[in-house]
Amino acid sequence: MTSQNLSVQVAINSWRLVMERTSKLFSGLTDDQLSKEVAPGKNRPIYLLGHLTAIHDAMFPILGLGDRLHPELDAIFVSSPDKTRTLPPVEELKKYWDAVNSKLLSQFATLSADEWLQRHYAMSEEDYAKDPTRNRLAVLLSRTNHMSYHLGQITLAIK
Amino acid sequence: MTSQNLSVQVAINSWRLVMERTSKLFSGLTDDQLSKEVAPGKNRPIYLLGHLTAIHDAMFPILGLGDRLHPELDAIFVSSPDKTRTLPPVEELKKYWDAVNSKLLSQFATLSADEWLQRHYAMSEEDYAKDPTRNRLAVLLSRTNHMSYHLGQITLAIK
Repeated sequence: MTSQNLSVQVAINSWRLVMERTSKLFSGLTDDQLSKEVAPGKNRPIYLLGHLTAIHDAMFPILGLGDRLHPELDAIFVSSPDKTRTLPPVEELKKYWDAVNSKLLSQFATLSADEWLQRHYAMSEEDYAKDPTRNRLAVLLSRTNHMSYHLGQITLAIK
Repeated sequence: MTSQNLSVQVAINSWRLVMERTSKLFSGLTDDQLSKEVAPGKNRPIYLLGHLTAIHDAMFPILGLGDRLHPELDAIFVSSPDKTRTLPPVEELKKYWDAVNSKLLSQFATLSADEWLQRHYAMSEEDYAKDPTRNRLAVLLSRTNHMSYHLGQITLAIK
């Protein structure tokens, strides 16, 4: 493995680890726990399940990995805060979560180390030229941190 | 910048971004908010401030960057759960947080990209040979995720 491949592998491992912990947590929560705010007045785990799925789904076009599976989630889980919209059934949301994350992981493996260091698609060529750290790898780390952030909150739903 | 340097730079940027967000959050919390559980029965932000400082301080020896600044924090913030020990004053804890993170960032800059991909010091040569992804970079990403996880919780202390 070249050094560059090794860096990318470490970053994908880190994503996978957080994703597996988050999946395990979601699977282990009862419907009651999923529907109870993580702290008074804050988001419910079921909302965070949809929110994380929507943000991960949006990684396909940002990373140049094709079309989204569930763009319809954005209106409910990104543009709207929790407790303002009717949510899809939890069983549907869990299926979307699995489908999006499983497809993402298999797509990650198709990118070469060089491609991970190229600009992401929410970035113009011009801006990338000014700051080459605004690449796909940066998106992966940013979304891993985002998932960790909400994982810390969802954990609070466990008694 | 070589590709390998670029990967490391992206990882350090990601650490710095989360660290700055966390620092800003701690600075903005009142003493009341720092002493109030983030959710009923859960940790207080003041405990998480000491906990994160202790875990970051432990990165010096793990990354081979020298001695710890505050090993005494472990007994209170790692081995003991919140609300079982008398904590240092918050002003002291904030000083430790700043000192540890500021020294870490300056030390990160002293490591070459190759050194980031070498084994970390909580790892034997033998185990590293089996799995070269268990390197310093993996420690950095893991601690960035850990900080993000608790950042998500501390945010709940804001009204």
